[in-house]
Amino acid sequence: MSDVSRRHFLGGAAFFAAAVTGAVSSQKSSKAGDPSFMNNIPDSDLAGDELPTFKFELEKTKGKVIGNSSGKEATVKQLPISTGIAGVSMRLEPGAMRELHWHATAAEWAMVLEGRVRTTVISPDGTAAIDDFVPGDVWLFPRGYGHMLECLGNESCHFVLIFDNGYFSEFGTFSITDWMGHTPKELLAKNFRLPVSAFEDFPKEEVYFGRGAVPPEIPDLPLHGKEKSTKSHKYEMLSKEPDDVFEGGRAWKVDSTKFPISTTMTGVFLELDPGALRELHWHPAADEWQYVVAGDISVTLFGSRGRYRIETLHKGDVGYIPQGYGHSIENVGTTTCKVLIGFNSGIYEKIDLSEWIAGNPADVLMTNFSQPKSMIEKFPRDDVFIAK
Amino acid sequence: MSDVSRRHFLGGAAFFAAAVTGAVSSQKSSKAGDPSFMNNIPDSDLAGDELPTFKFELEKTKGKVIGNSSGKEATVKQLPISTGIAGVSMRLEPGAMRELHWHATAAEWAMVLEGRVRTTVISPDGTAAIDDFVPGDVWLFPRGYGHMLECLGNESCHFVLIFDNGYFSEFGTFSITDWMGHTPKELLAKNFRLPVSAFEDFPKEEVYFGRGAVPPEIPDLPLHGKEKSTKSHKYEMLSKEPDDVFEGGRAWKVDSTKFPISTTMTGVFLELDPGALRELHWHPAADEWQYVVAGDISVTLFGSRGRYRIETLHKGDVGYIPQGYGHSIENVGTTTCKVLIGFNSGIYEKIDLSEWIAGNPADVLMTNFSQPKSMIEKFPRDDVFIAK
Amino acid sequence: MSDVSRRHFLGGAAFFAAAVTGAVSSQKSSKAGDPSFMNNIPDSDLAGDELPTFKFELEKTKGKVIGNSSGKEATVKQLPISTGIAGVSMRLEPGAMRELHWHATAAEWAMVLEGRVRTTVISPDGTAAIDDFVPGDVWLFPRGYGHMLECLGNESCHFVLIFDNGYFSEFGTFSITDWMGHTPKELLAKNFRLPVSAFEDFPKEEVYFGRGAVPPEIPDLPLHGKEKSTKSHKYEMLSKEPDDVFEGGRAWKVDSTKFPISTTMTGVFLELDPGALRELHWHPAADEWQYVVAGDISVTLFGSRGRYRIETLHKGDVGYIPQGYGHSIENVGTTTCKVLIGFNSGIYEKIDLSEWIAGNPADVLMTNFSQPKSMIEKFPRDDVFIAK
Repeated sequence: MSDVSRRHFLGGAAFFAAAVTGAVSSQKSSKAGDPSFMNNIPDSDLAGDELPTFKFELEKTKGKVIGNSSGKEATVKQLPISTGIAGVSMRLEPGAMRELHWHATAAEWAMVLEGRVRTTVISPDGTAAIDDFVPGDVWLFPRGYGHMLECLGNESCHFVLIFDNGYFSEFGTFSITDWMGHTPKELLAKNFRLPVSAFEDFPKEEVYFGRGAVPPEIPDLPLHGKEKSTKSHKYEMLSKEPDDVFEGGRAWKVDSTKFPISTTMTGVFLELDPGALRELHWHPAADEWQYVVAGDISVTLFGSRGRYRIETLHKGDVGYIPQGYGHSIENVGTTTCKVLIGFNSGIYEKIDLSEWIAGNPADVLMTNFSQPKSMIEKFPRDDVFIAK
Repeated sequence: MSDVSRRHFLGGAAFFAAAVTGAVSSQKSSKAGDPSFMNNIPDSDLAGDELPTFKFELEKTKGKVIGNSSGKEATVKQLPISTGIAGVSMRLEPGAMRELHWHATAAEWAMVLEGRVRTTVISPDGTAAIDDFVPGDVWLFPRGYGHMLECLGNESCHFVLIFDNGYFSEFGTFSITDWMGHTPKELLAKNFRLPVSAFEDFPKEEVYFGRGAVPPEIPDLPLHGKEKSTKSHKYEMLSKEPDDVFEGGRAWKVDSTKFPISTTMTGVFLELDPGALRELHWHPAADEWQYVVAGDISVTLFGSRGRYRIETLHKGDVGYIPQGYGHSIENVGTTTCKVLIGFNSGIYEKIDLSEWIAGNPADVLMTNFSQPKSMIEKFPRDDVFIAK
Repeated sequence: MSDVSRRHFLGGAAFFAAAVTGAVSSQKSSKAGDPSFMNNIPDSDLAGDELPTFKFELEKTKGKVIGNSSGKEATVKQLPISTGIAGVSMRLEPGAMRELHWHATAAEWAMVLEGRVRTTVISPDGTAAIDDFVPGDVWLFPRGYGHMLECLGNESCHFVLIFDNGYFSEFGTFSITDWMGHTPKELLAKNFRLPVSAFEDFPKEEVYFGRGAVPPEIPDLPLHGKEKSTKSHKYEMLSKEPDDVFEGGRAWKVDSTKFPISTTMTGVFLELDPGALRELHWHPAADEWQYVVAGDISVTLFGSRGRYRIETLHKGDVGYIPQGYGHSIENVGTTTCKVLIGFNSGIYEKIDLSEWIAGNPADVLMTNFSQPKSMIEKFPRDDVFIAK
């Protein structure tokens, strides 16, 4: 291998730190939307003798604050285990806007928790969409689509964004004012067939949160005057009946089978009554990202080779479960807990421990657990899903 | 780049070894089942001036032994070149079981060589299957599906497992007793609606090979009482006629076109008479993993830039051919050789040297090889495939 | 993590360089042809506080020269940012041939710029094709397909090859004489059912550029006598009308929707009149590789976080735009510029700044840019694409 190519393999100069020896990058490429794909190489964060923490107290961070708007993020920087999925908790005050931007490296799935939100989005086919959201509504913007988020009405809004890439943030978010502010004015003038002077008062640096008038209740047409695109970026999730109703809890689910544009992500909203347990299970083809909307939960994580970790998450905390890892969620508080969950796959899949066991003949389980038939026959015959 | 994110790039603390300097991880992500995908970055094991060994004497290892059952594995740990595919040779004594488990990072393809085997498997749709296998039969469990393997009858059995990930083993195999043994009993009790005392005598650590009564000849129904799933995990391979019959040898092939669940793997069983040659060829979109069931073979490997390596494999040895590399297999023994071959693609594809040459006009070959037309016209006009 | 597996993670001995400390490999795996996939981990070359150069003066290099034939390449070795795509500028003298070879790690897309070219290609289904090309014609050989390129007629030819892998070159190009020259003659004899003596005068090392008689104007049939395959490897691009015609420029585009075999690559040929601008835009799901066929262009590149770089490219220079990065191309010369562009995706997608802005209501833009409605209403109402 030549010196030149080795230099490339070893990475750019920015990565060399003379005092640091021996290094292996954490590897995870996710082919979102295709359950058959998972990266082969074990993630370095998951290679130790003990499982790393999978909890991050997101709402206790300050985040980026402008006026009364804020964005708090959980990426691999804050929660190293979360290589497959990142998230942001964002609050916008009335009249505030997360400006026009795109993510080069991630799709964005979101649910509104409080207040109302308006979004605009541009597709590669040139069609644009404007949508309004209330709590429980969901949006999905595929990787690279330009979009904007703004508070609608006179009350602040709060929403949680979930990205199918734990590294989405750095080097991956492109804002329109950052772009135009660094583009020579002569180029902008030519681009838009306008005089150079037209851009004199444009922002020079990234605005991030813009602030202006409260938007009109009924959105105006876009400048080009056309109606919105036919492919919907919006799904009204919590206003529907739950997909699963058990004694002890309920779950709403939305993947690409119901929300066709969501080819790389799936969302679940889980409610558990006090003491209820979302049973031991795993997802064969997706990482899981959790945000506690309300309540207190105990999450178990099983990582093979005897590695086991239990953490308690409270309102505003984030949890992460790697693809294929066993886990459970139990309400250990005194009120109903609500957990917003995102997966980096367009198809929802899970295997529950109880249904796996019930799918085996008694003699198999007797040999596996060295137990008498009398014990084995006590196992539930159906999928428990939520136990109380 | 901030200190925090650099720390992440450089991997967790477990990876730092003060005495080790300069490091590049070996990269290979395989999108099994999609021939259009191959990782771009050359594998570090293949970047040297000489080809590394592609042979591992699997059956000479001790492996994991419990009673008279054993599992011997060939992963990147034992055979560094084999980043794309791993394999295990497993023997179970009567009454023994490879307990309920799943692989977070690989699909499992297998052929029974001796004895009889019963498997159970759970799918994410909740359906379970129970299947019985004799020598020459094949199973396929997609990545993340929970399954069990047990010896059927009073004779030991022997089978070879092939995984579409050379790293499948470490951190990727999850056993039910390891999981339940580390889960608090109170949680198990709630999960299964049973008293805590019910789990007092359950295994505390991973069982791996369970041992009990010989299973009934006709399998009992699963606990939940339902019939097996309609999507078959079983393919009776060697009881069919060979797909290719040549003077000098035969080959059986099974990919997803015949065995629909096998979307990420293909199997071939090759028999060569003494002196016969599976001609020079390559696979455009799959790595190849070889297990010598019987006989002695000479395998050539061509790696571009003048790199060439020849190794002789005997019964019980494993070979590995990286995607796109030229190779051949010759029977150099005195008896018919039998080679079990696995590919990490759901579609079988190959290009044979003879058919490539025959697909060119004579003038092209004359210029390419600086040979007279009289020599060029001696080349075979059809695909040789197996020569004797 | 065990010592053995860490050793593997750290790569083979060839990668250890005692004097080099701290290393992170540059990661980029591209699933060409599937816009939903991009590698999650930011490329190390793109992680610094400033954007690296995205320009390489390809035609000023000497390249590989044999007689009056030459091949000059731009890979990650020459242009480190270009991890997703590589390219080669090749010239063949009359009677010369780029010999039979295949690329284990990349598909090959090409356009002829001067002279005439004949190719042969073998598919995994065993069918072969022979095609002749004039300037403006395009070919596509999927990853791993064996092929040959030769000059047709008495004039030299010049063509540009584009590969969907910036690492394609090293360890990835396999030539037939390199293979056969290192294969034992006894094996070749058996393979082709010929005497060992038949191979005595065959080349011992890689020929790379073969030289012989000028090929017949009408190609002979292949040795096996069969007609070409039905799936075309050829697309006559520039002899068609442009897909986009604007005042100031024109563009021809070909992706898999017109050229079905081109599932992992897209080509564009862009002509701009002096002073014309291909406006600010980005590609959500593909890297872009540029080759300046004629003229002088100024290319802007926006990389988020205030990172902006402008470079001027002249005839024979190569440029590279990472997936999702904002960019523009302006003709800053005095003649029409012609730019050949390749993308590592089988579907052409772009978002233009003007159409994004026009897809938003005025109040959104007023808040985003802190501008009065009078200014916002001056923005173009349609997609500008090319401005003059």
